[in-house]
Amino acid sequence: MVYKKITLIGSSDESFDAAVDNAVDRAEETLNNVHWVEVVEMGVEVASVEGREYQVEVEVAFQLDE
Amino acid sequence: MVYKKITLIGSSDESFDAAVDNAVDRAEETLNNVHWVEVVEMGVEVASVEGREYQVEVEVAFQLDE
Amino acid sequence: MVYKKITLIGSSDESFDAAVDNAVDRAEETLNNVHWVEVVEMGVEVASVEGREYQVEVEVAFQLDE
Amino acid sequence: MVYKKITLIGSSDESFDAAVDNAVDRAEETLNNVHWVEVVEMGVEVASVEGREYQVEVEVAFQLDE
Amino acid sequence: MVYKKITLIGSSDESFDAAVDNAVDRAEETLNNVHWVEVVEMGVEVASVEGREYQVEVEVAFQLDE
Amino acid sequence: MVYKKITLIGSSDESFDAAVDNAVDRAEETLNNVHWVEVVEMGVEVASVEGREYQVEVEVAFQLDE
Amino acid sequence: MVYKKITLIGSSDESFDAAVDNAVDRAEETLNNVHWVEVVEMGVEVASVEGREYQVEVEVAFQLDE
Amino acid sequence: MVYKKITLIGSSDESFDAAVDNAVDRAEETLNNVHWVEVVEMGVEVASVEGREYQVEVEVAFQLDE
Amino acid sequence: MVYKKITLIGSSDESFDAAVDNAVDRAEETLNNVHWVEVVEMGVEVASVEGREYQVEVEVAFQLDE
Amino acid sequence: MVYKKITLIGSSDESFDAAVDNAVDRAEETLNNVHWVEVVEMGVEVASVEGREYQVEVEVAFQLDE
Amino acid sequence: MVYKKITLIGSSDESFDAAVDNAVDRAEETLNNVHWVEVVEMGVEVASVEGREYQVEVEVAFQLDE
Amino acid sequence: MVYKKITLIGSSDESFDAAVDNAVDRAEETLNNVHWVEVVEMGVEVASVEGREYQVEVEVAFQLDE
Repeated sequence: MVYKKITLIGSSDESFDAAVDNAVDRAEETLNNVHWVEVVEMGVEVASVEGREYQVEVEVAFQLDE
Repeated sequence: MVYKKITLIGSSDESFDAAVDNAVDRAEETLNNVHWVEVVEMGVEVASVEGREYQVEVEVAFQLDE
Repeated sequence: MVYKKITLIGSSDESFDAAVDNAVDRAEETLNNVHWVEVVEMGVEVASVEGREYQVEVEVAFQLDE
Repeated sequence: MVYKKITLIGSSDESFDAAVDNAVDRAEETLNNVHWVEVVEMGVEVASVEGREYQVEVEVAFQLDE
Repeated sequence: MVYKKITLIGSSDESFDAAVDNAVDRAEETLNNVHWVEVVEMGVEVASVEGREYQVEVEVAFQLDE
Repeated sequence: MVYKKITLIGSSDESFDAAVDNAVDRAEETLNNVHWVEVVEMGVEVASVEGREYQVEVEVAFQLDE
Repeated sequence: MVYKKITLIGSSDESFDAAVDNAVDRAEETLNNVHWVEVVEMGVEVASVEGREYQVEVEVAFQLDE
Repeated sequence: MVYKKITLIGSSDESFDAAVDNAVDRAEETLNNVHWVEVVEMGVEVASVEGREYQVEVEVAFQLDE
Repeated sequence: MVYKKITLIGSSDESFDAAVDNAVDRAEETLNNVHWVEVVEMGVEVASVEGREYQVEVEVAFQLDE
Repeated sequence: MVYKKITLIGSSDESFDAAVDNAVDRAEETLNNVHWVEVVEMGVEVASVEGREYQVEVEVAFQLDE
Repeated sequence: MVYKKITLIGSSDESFDAAVDNAVDRAEETLNNVHWVEVVEMGVEVASVEGREYQVEVEVAFQLDE
Repeated sequence: MVYKKITLIGSSDESFDAAVDNAVDRAEETLNNVHWVEVVEMGVEVASVEGREYQVEVEVAFQLDE
């Protein structure tokens, strides 16, 4: 059994929780066996967006097919 | 005055905030003098649960009796 | 173009999201060009407050005038 | 569901693998629900032992009773 | 000459060495020019497996075709 | 031979050395086989005390009975 | 909006700047929306090359198509 | 309630404790509500001074006026 | 003697060296006694600029007046 | 009593344990009072060797003569 | 001008300050141009000594002859 | 095959690249088998020099004779 990890950054104009879900949703669209997710960094983008954009960098671990 | 720190991992199927509260609630059931809590790690368990389980590892500092 | 970063700790008795917003609001009261914010640490103060106070340390980056 | 983590240092005069097993064996003698173990540090004690003693510091996570 | 790194987690019910080899074997099945591997994290899964599963997270560096 | 580590925070209104000793003294009151201590963090509490309180977080390693 | 990050190591026999550009050039050949790059590690390979090869490990963040 | 943190480096030709006090004294001359201090780095300057100069870098947290 | 450190991010469309100089130049415009500078992070902004903007985050240490 | 630490990287085509022993053996050939060893990094070299070469970077602490 | 750094661990049964001085004294016995010293780790040895032995690991930087 | 690593700090009044080369040049004057170099820290000395002195701390790995 071998897992692979990829790094995604999800975003939301609502909350950090929604930003994480945004990244996990995206991972599950293309990956079949997402097992767990680790939060790596959290931040807020202010200058280049309207209002505030909550961003969370996550590592997504999924099982490779054998 | 001496503090001790223990490490707990709280969980919630709702949010990271609720996962932290879950851990602090548990600490306060058995410890009298919880002073502060530090977040150490955040993650999401996907494979072994229905939906998503938000998990937060925290260090709970409480004052030892003299 | 030169940015400067300052370190603030926001707080809220509601949630970590609100604690971050609290710090960013404060930064924007006195700084004109806030560009982004990085979360550095999260914790909960218990002993010296009623209930729980969610605290988030952030680094706020803003553009210096030329 | 709340987990607790404790920190143990196992040792062996044979190998790092055996030092890890030594710590996990000890944890399982007194804890019912060990879930996972994280390796934190590895080293070799030379001066105070015969030959070499392989040592591994681990964090052991177990589920608290509800 | 440009290298790319990917992150894999190998596993074994025998030893950490075998878990590393498991990840490197998998990498070499699909990648032609694996150059080196760095160990990032080691752990033992206990609850969801029979016995113990040794797991090692590695970064695998391989040369990209020009 | 298995060691366990616990985390304590000692304090003193005199010095950091005294804060470390305060934590080690407390550990030795209840633990028989303290082997070594590692300093993890140092700080000074100002607002909630008279004068200054020097605080040192330490990890105390002691040998478990066999 | 979701970003993905990949890790590349660029090289140059001239300078660290050129090694970074080498990695970013390569990323932009195959990726449409590179947004930013973070330097992770810098080093010099000496033994296996003529002269010196400057190497820089970078994380390249690009926007995923929606 | 929002705190701000600044970074100071205190020095003393006597001891590390005195170097910390030196930095905290300076902070309290110009700041009204110093709450706590975290030690970040310790060192000794030798070449550019007579004897030895003990230096401690600290982060000083103080409460901003509302 | 007390030093203070501030955090700046310099930028250049030429090189990392120029980005550092850009930050140090800015610091010296408003501060009299800059003593040393530490590089904290290096990156390249791609999406929001023409070409590439090399950015370097630095901590600038300067001596406070007595 | 003063200790000195040096950094060695041992290697083996067999296992990580053998790579550590390789480094410690070498240290003991030239140093009289090796006290302990700390593992700093583990990796596998693939491209420049036949098969795989397990490498472990260690810090070796030995007592200086008085 | 090139500096070299070596790593020493000084000890004292009195205080951390004395342990640092112990390491610096030793360095200056054999090295002509010690410039500065950085504290890396602090600990207390308890089991193998009478009373307590304060230990401080330092990096000593000295200028190499040209 | 055993490697040893030493820590040097090179300097240049021109650039960081030149500061690295300065350290590697010095290492190769006295060491026969330098294999690779890792950049550990970068900084600029301002107060004690004319203009600016770019400094880079590197770890130099070389192969020990068998």
